[in-house]
Amino acid sequence: MAQIYERVALIGLGLIASSMAYAMREKGLAGEIVGTARSSETRDLAREIGFCDRVVETAAEAVEGADLVVLCVPVGAMGAVAEEIGSHLQSGAVLSDVGSTKRAVIDAVGPHVPEGVHLIPAHPVAGTEQSGPRSGFATLFENRWLLMTPDEGVDPEVLARYKSYWEAMGALVGEMEPDHHDLVLAVTSHAPHLIAYTMVGVADDLRRVTDSEVVKYSAAGFRDFTRIAASDPTMWRDVFLANKDATLEILGRFTEELFALQRAIRTGDGEHLHDYFTRTRAIRRGIIEAGQDTAAPNFGRSGGGG
Amino acid sequence: MAQIYERVALIGLGLIASSMAYAMREKGLAGEIVGTARSSETRDLAREIGFCDRVVETAAEAVEGADLVVLCVPVGAMGAVAEEIGSHLQSGAVLSDVGSTKRAVIDAVGPHVPEGVHLIPAHPVAGTEQSGPRSGFATLFENRWLLMTPDEGVDPEVLARYKSYWEAMGALVGEMEPDHHDLVLAVTSHAPHLIAYTMVGVADDLRRVTDSEVVKYSAAGFRDFTRIAASDPTMWRDVFLANKDATLEILGRFTEELFALQRAIRTGDGEHLHDYFTRTRAIRRGIIEAGQDTAAPNFGRSGGGG
Repeated sequence: MAQIYERVALIGLGLIASSMAYAMREKGLAGEIVGTARSSETRDLAREIGFCDRVVETAAEAVEGADLVVLCVPVGAMGAVAEEIGSHLQSGAVLSDVGSTKRAVIDAVGPHVPEGVHLIPAHPVAGTEQSGPRSGFATLFENRWLLMTPDEGVDPEVLARYKSYWEAMGALVGEMEPDHHDLVLAVTSHAPHLIAYTMVGVADDLRRVTDSEVVKYSAAGFRDFTRIAASDPTMWRDVFLANKDATLEILGRFTEELFALQRAIRTGDGEHLHDYFTRTRAIRRGIIEAGQDTAAPNFGRSGGGG
Repeated sequence: MAQIYERVALIGLGLIASSMAYAMREKGLAGEIVGTARSSETRDLAREIGFCDRVVETAAEAVEGADLVVLCVPVGAMGAVAEEIGSHLQSGAVLSDVGSTKRAVIDAVGPHVPEGVHLIPAHPVAGTEQSGPRSGFATLFENRWLLMTPDEGVDPEVLARYKSYWEAMGALVGEMEPDHHDLVLAVTSHAPHLIAYTMVGVADDLRRVTDSEVVKYSAAGFRDFTRIAASDPTMWRDVFLANKDATLEILGRFTEELFALQRAIRTGDGEHLHDYFTRTRAIRRGIIEAGQDTAAPNFGRSGGGG
């Protein structure tokens, strides 16, 4: 694959940035990869692992001469980083990000983008429950969606080039309006994460059931929730605060529906329950057919549990 | 491994029964395996697959001469089956079940157990999202818990023998008081299942987000919920109706906690969110250390998604 950018600057060096670095190297997409992170521990660790060509001390330094700059910090930190780097960005550069919410990032970053720099907000719908510079791997984006929420005024050639960059890393690229993105992700990601966090917290709290019982019998369904609830706390705090309205709306709908099912349990309305549970099976089939999950029982984990 | 029972009767031929049959055969635990199911389609399918030595028409016929009878039907059907087979049970036989709730099964089955028959309620904490006679496999119970909730008066030798039978199939065997079992499972299984069903139903319902969007971007967390929400509707309807009190209690605690987190989002209380999300990570570590799940990202599924 041919080189697409001469110098790519990654600001923030966690799961997404390190995976991008591995994928870029594997495909030869960047002339040079420069990285930086706020904490010196993270920078030292990244140097030790060696997925960047250079790890520098500051974001301002990292973006010097870069024709692609990708913000890979928690959503709540994007505005401050944009302010720091704004005047250091090279004219003609693409400024992008990998935040899980888009409207808040556009509002926070937009005002700091100088004329001549192309802002293309993006979100790779990919990740694992692990975080930090050690968690990255080159295939993270393969067959996963990269959603872009570009402004209408963005140069089509610049956009096509950035699209080809993600496709080269294996992603399926889609475009969306930022508010619609935030609503869709509230459904497929943000609300499920908050719900999983909540359920795991409840289990942890329950005095009459010991932690060791929860752990021992987790294979009955609960362990799938704990995987989601093991995700990075800072990232997720910022996601919920940044996508407040859509998340609260979906949680409102969720609570309403949960109350209806609780009432069906209380009144012994088995038909309502059975109908509801039958309907939800179909969605699973759709996801497997779309290649977004495995059809193997228990995700192909060995042994049972369920 | 030596034979433990001469004739084992499996009433109901779904995931659990077929997996027991495969495991028994692999280890040589039963002289003969006799099975039956209510629907003729299921009986025909089981004959075709061949995991039983004999498939008979009725439950009464199946239990004739059996020294172990295991009820593998949905919890709501246990009472009627017990009534049908009660007078046909051989003296000295063990009558057990694999229901996910225990108090309701004891109440429904108990009155039909004749003198001289040993009732040992049991629950293998194992399964997959798949169901029916085609879904079984011999290793389903390996390293998974089998919880027994025996009456204090049960013969210790009979109990030890039944325990060794499950251990031979790979299970870790534990004993519990029935009501405590139902509360623990409400936390680790029943409430998480209802919550997953609810969230998937909400996603399906949402007019502004199309089903195809939900399916496409499911890797963001939602797909883990859809696996749980693809479980057998009849089984789960019965579980919720049979474990009504404990499930509603846990759901009440869940809703309370969810409201507190929603309020933290609404008021922008990032510290509350971050503290909560940090606490839930520890439970995941415990489950992995206890050997009840894989430490591999995304359960070891290939590629990303998170």
